[in-house]
Amino acid sequence: MDRSDISVTAPGDVCAPQGFLAAGIHCGVKRKRRDLALLVSEPPDAAVAAVFTTNKVRAAPVRYCQEVVTGGRAQAIVVNSGNANACTGEQGMADAREMADLTGRCLSVDPGRVLVASTGVIGVYLPMDSIREGIPRAVEELQPSGDTAARAILTTDRFTKTTTARLQVGGETVTVGGMAKGAGMIHPRLATTLGFLTTDARVAPDVLSTVLQSAVDRSFNRITVDGETSTNDAVFLLANGASGVEVTGGDDLARFTEAVTAVAESLARMVPRDGEGATRLIEVRVQGARNDAEALRGAERVANSLLVKTALRGGDPNWGRALAAVGAADIDVEEDRVDLWLGEAQVARGGVAVPENLEAARQHLEQETVELRIDLGLENGAASVWTCDLGEEYIQINVQRG
Amino acid sequence: MDRSDISVTAPGDVCAPQGFLAAGIHCGVKRKRRDLALLVSEPPDAAVAAVFTTNKVRAAPVRYCQEVVTGGRAQAIVVNSGNANACTGEQGMADAREMADLTGRCLSVDPGRVLVASTGVIGVYLPMDSIREGIPRAVEELQPSGDTAARAILTTDRFTKTTTARLQVGGETVTVGGMAKGAGMIHPRLATTLGFLTTDARVAPDVLSTVLQSAVDRSFNRITVDGETSTNDAVFLLANGASGVEVTGGDDLARFTEAVTAVAESLARMVPRDGEGATRLIEVRVQGARNDAEALRGAERVANSLLVKTALRGGDPNWGRALAAVGAADIDVEEDRVDLWLGEAQVARGGVAVPENLEAARQHLEQETVELRIDLGLENGAASVWTCDLGEEYIQINVQRG
Repeated sequence: MDRSDISVTAPGDVCAPQGFLAAGIHCGVKRKRRDLALLVSEPPDAAVAAVFTTNKVRAAPVRYCQEVVTGGRAQAIVVNSGNANACTGEQGMADAREMADLTGRCLSVDPGRVLVASTGVIGVYLPMDSIREGIPRAVEELQPSGDTAARAILTTDRFTKTTTARLQVGGETVTVGGMAKGAGMIHPRLATTLGFLTTDARVAPDVLSTVLQSAVDRSFNRITVDGETSTNDAVFLLANGASGVEVTGGDDLARFTEAVTAVAESLARMVPRDGEGATRLIEVRVQGARNDAEALRGAERVANSLLVKTALRGGDPNWGRALAAVGAADIDVEEDRVDLWLGEAQVARGGVAVPENLEAARQHLEQETVELRIDLGLENGAASVWTCDLGEEYIQINVQRG
Repeated sequence: MDRSDISVTAPGDVCAPQGFLAAGIHCGVKRKRRDLALLVSEPPDAAVAAVFTTNKVRAAPVRYCQEVVTGGRAQAIVVNSGNANACTGEQGMADAREMADLTGRCLSVDPGRVLVASTGVIGVYLPMDSIREGIPRAVEELQPSGDTAARAILTTDRFTKTTTARLQVGGETVTVGGMAKGAGMIHPRLATTLGFLTTDARVAPDVLSTVLQSAVDRSFNRITVDGETSTNDAVFLLANGASGVEVTGGDDLARFTEAVTAVAESLARMVPRDGEGATRLIEVRVQGARNDAEALRGAERVANSLLVKTALRGGDPNWGRALAAVGAADIDVEEDRVDLWLGEAQVARGGVAVPENLEAARQHLEQETVELRIDLGLENGAASVWTCDLGEEYIQINVQRG
């Protein structure tokens, strides 16, 4: 779809849409860095949609939010980083509920309209004393800027991830904002990582759900860092109607969906670019597959191959590893019909090396964004997945982390 | 099954059974180390069985051997390391055939009874001049010991992998020998890695196939290093009848199968123990699953989890990562029924931490062999998978390798 009338800027601001406030403070879940964020809609009846992890083991805040979003309305989200509140049983559910209740009381908002998200270490109870002390302080610091909140939701991320999109609907401006965090335990086919999207359009909850699912399928569900599916993944979208513009259907809805998708895509691509230890963003595209589903399966297998990711770290155009990975993807592959490209350099034709292009391929691998394209030469199925290279730093980060 | 009457020794010798000769030399595929191995049965009519990779991209020697083994008889295997002869098209097939033909001529053996195996870099043509020069020299060095052959089949392995088993059949001794190589691109549900098994029992080819498939399912198909399925995996079993003992069915066949399985298991466990950069062998056991297939899927997911493998490298009893991994395995999991153990230390009960056992778990992680057991608390399905921890050396090895 044409996006020429949608302006997308990154960095952006989750508070760029009218009527949103945010704050991010340090309360003591982490040793030093900000670890508690609030996102609040000034209009009380914002519509909410959410997509959650497909992991059978779901953190307490995920289970809690799945209840809240069934009502279709929410006004605030409280987020802590440094502790996932996952694998914490009854105590974890009580803690998630208390976070919502306390936030609601401090904001004079119905606690049943407060969402909760957590990210960090698994299997350890939340330090509730720190959080109890922090929530009122975060409420005092609310302002119409998502800057500190975008920092407070991070874990091993090296940079904040924010995007803003604007489009005209009936002569009025509608704004979509968003912030997200990475940077490990990231794998497609779920609402990967934490993402918080906002808009000042007025949209009915059921329509908003369809918009968000479509956007996530084309963004957060197409990225992978390490093939790990988190217990805490969630992407939220709040629509507070503060612009006075209602989006109900037709072309307006299609363009609004495109704007939300543009923000989600922009945020999602920042995640593997900032993957733990990553130096390169890699787009794996499989085309010529039997169908789109097989293409996606093939692209995911290649994007999760340790041998492909380590080769690209080394700047080594080792296309054989990519061909071996797609051959193991449980999809239709006929080796002698497969072509491979790194950027514009064709490195294999009919499953066999094209040695004269290896030098051009090597040069492409020096770019910050690498394109690995595999044409299976069968039918028209195609799909892309975004990932990153794999270096020793990933190991160092995850050997040390508690 | 009871194995008390089977003696298993490792290190062992692929030439321990009567009537086998072997050799391993350096011919120039690798810079310095041995890279060409021969394994020959003195009786010309040895029965052969084989299991090959399930990857849709299959190396030339795999495709070549799939033809040869349909005849049920083989007398020799020629193996090179340092180059996989994979993704090499027509030229690769011609090179595999020439290796068999030349070996057959030098041995005065029907070339149609010579098998070929290759392991190493993908997508590069074999240096046939080196191999042509090497094969006659390897034939001259044949002797009734597999010592140099076991070295010549290695790639990134740090040690040779050999086992011998002996059992009595009708008052006579039957011997089973074997050698294998690792150490990366290793994942279950295929004939993982290269394995060469020998026996001096006389067994019909169709019976031998059943024996080998059963042994591989319980050994080479239960190990993983990096979740990568090679294009070259193959496990061969030659039965030359030199002991004069025939195994046809009944209890003898069951016990013979057990002896072959014992050798295959012994060799298979050496592979993750010698996984690229590994310091620990890890047994992941899932029990209490809906059925054995779900247990196996769960165990494989945990055994391939980068976060589990890096935690174990760090000696960190981070059971939450294992629970998250099994929750993502697309099997039935009810979080509040899951118990986890590290060795004898129960670290989670009903999906929640048992903090008083963490110190004992930490001590267990200092062992060379770690047992991670997950009881899903549902029904009686159970399965084990063997893997290794993941360290920076894996990245170093695979970033550098060409």
